[in-house]
Amino acid sequence: MAKFVTIGERLSTTAPAVNKAFTERDPEPIIKRAKQQLDAGATYLDVNIGPAENDGEDLMKWAVQLLQSEFDNVPLALDTTNQKAIEAGISVYNRAKGKPIVNSADAGDRISNIDLAAANDAICIALCSSGMVAADNDERMMHCQNMLERGMAQGMDTEDLWFDPLFLVVKGMQDKQMEVLEAIKMFSEMGLNSTGGLSNNSNGMPKHIRPIMDSALVAMAMMNGLTSAIVNPNDLRLMETIKSCDVFKGNTLYADSYLEI
Amino acid sequence: MAKFVTIGERLSTTAPAVNKAFTERDPEPIIKRAKQQLDAGATYLDVNIGPAENDGEDLMKWAVQLLQSEFDNVPLALDTTNQKAIEAGISVYNRAKGKPIVNSADAGDRISNIDLAAANDAICIALCSSGMVAADNDERMMHCQNMLERGMAQGMDTEDLWFDPLFLVVKGMQDKQMEVLEAIKMFSEMGLNSTGGLSNNSNGMPKHIRPIMDSALVAMAMMNGLTSAIVNPNDLRLMETIKSCDVFKGNTLYADSYLEI
Repeated sequence: MAKFVTIGERLSTTAPAVNKAFTERDPEPIIKRAKQQLDAGATYLDVNIGPAENDGEDLMKWAVQLLQSEFDNVPLALDTTNQKAIEAGISVYNRAKGKPIVNSADAGDRISNIDLAAANDAICIALCSSGMVAADNDERMMHCQNMLERGMAQGMDTEDLWFDPLFLVVKGMQDKQMEVLEAIKMFSEMGLNSTGGLSNNSNGMPKHIRPIMDSALVAMAMMNGLTSAIVNPNDLRLMETIKSCDVFKGNTLYADSYLEI
Repeated sequence: MAKFVTIGERLSTTAPAVNKAFTERDPEPIIKRAKQQLDAGATYLDVNIGPAENDGEDLMKWAVQLLQSEFDNVPLALDTTNQKAIEAGISVYNRAKGKPIVNSADAGDRISNIDLAAANDAICIALCSSGMVAADNDERMMHCQNMLERGMAQGMDTEDLWFDPLFLVVKGMQDKQMEVLEAIKMFSEMGLNSTGGLSNNSNGMPKHIRPIMDSALVAMAMMNGLTSAIVNPNDLRLMETIKSCDVFKGNTLYADSYLEI
C-alpha cells in the first residue's frame, strides 16, 4: 500500500495573515507557511484562496507558480469555489511531483468539478454530500456512487477520486462518529481512495485537547482504510500518529528513525 | 458499549522493586505502584507474582488482601503459572467491584486455567496460542474456538473469556501487525471480548518512541473492537488515546473534562 497522503491546510484565506498576503501578492508569509508545513512532512499543500470572485485566476496562477518555483514543484490542491481559478492554476501547474488536486466537488451544485478534473487529468476530492450533511451512510454511499459514475463516464481513473465522508463535530454529533468511520471502511472495501478535513471532529474543544482527539481519530480512520487527510502538518502528535499507523499497515518499513522522515 | 477496560501491568515481579517487595511482604512499594496506576485511571490491576512455586498461595492471598483492603476492593487480575496460587487468591477475593481475572489460559498446556475460571465464576484471559506464536489467523481462530468450546462446555458466559491475539513485536514481525489487528476484528464480529499486552509491539524501540507506537496501535485495535488491554496506565499518551477512542465509539459521553476522568 502507498503511504498516507497529508494535505497541509495552513495556506488558507481563513487565516488573516494568509488572506492579506494573497490580496497583496506578498510572497513572504506564503513561503514561510509553506516551508513550515513541508518541513513537518506534508505531502501536498492546499491553496485555499477563498471564493476569489474577482481576481481568482490571476491569484491562483501567482500562488501556484510561487510555491512550485520555491519548493521544487511541490504538489498542490487548488481550493476555491471559482472554477476558472482552478483551471487557471492547472494551466501553469507542473506535474513532476504529482497531479493537481481539485478541491472540491460534491454530489450537488459542485458536481461539475469532477468534469473539470477529468478534462485536466487531475485528482478530485469528492464530498459525499449535496450541500447538506448526509443523513446516514445510505445517503453518503448514494452520493459516492453518483460521483463515481460521473467520473468513470468521463474516463477518470477511479483512484483519482478521493472520497470525503465529511468528518463531523463531536460536540453536537458524537453519535455520528462511528458512521463516518464506517463510510471510510466502505470506500476502502470498494478499493477507493478517501480523504477529509479530519480536525472538524474537534471543533469547539479546548485547544490542548484537539491534537489528542485528532490523533486518535486519524488512527481509527487509517485502520478503516483512510488514504489521505487534510491536516495541520505542524500538529506533531498527529503526524507522529500517521507515521506510526503507516508502519503498522506496512506502508513504510520500520526504522528507529521513522519519525524523522 | 462498555468503556474500554485497562489492566495495569506495573505490579509485576519482572520489576526488581516489586519482586523484592513481594518476597519481603513489604506493603509500601506495592501500595505506591497500585496508587499510581489507579490515579492514572486503571480499571483492573494485574498482580504478577511470577512462577511463585514455593509460597505462591500465601503470597497471592497477601497481595489480594493488601490491595483490596487499601483500595476499596479494586478488581484484580491474578497472574501466575501457579494454579493453586490463583485459587488461593480467589478464595479471599472480594467481587464488589468486578470478577477476578485469571491471567492466563492458552490452548495448550495452560487450557485447564479455563476450567479454573469456570469453577470460580472468574474472567479468563485466553491466549490464542499453544505455546508458540500462531502461524496465521487460521491457527489463532482455531485456538480461539477450542478455548471457547472448553469454556462453554463448563457453563461459562462467553463474555468472561477475553481472547488475546498476542501482540507481536514490530521489530522483526512488522509484516504480521495487520493480521493481529484482523484477529481482533474477528473476535469482535463473533461478539467476543478481547485483550492483550499491547506494548509488546514496541519492544526494543527507543524509549521515546514506545508511547507513540503504543497509542497508534491501541486506537487501531479499538477501531477493530478490542475491548481491553494490559497496559502501563502511567503512559499518559496511551490513556488519553484510549479515552478519546471511547468518545468516538460512544462508550463515554464527550465533555471538555473527559481526559480527567
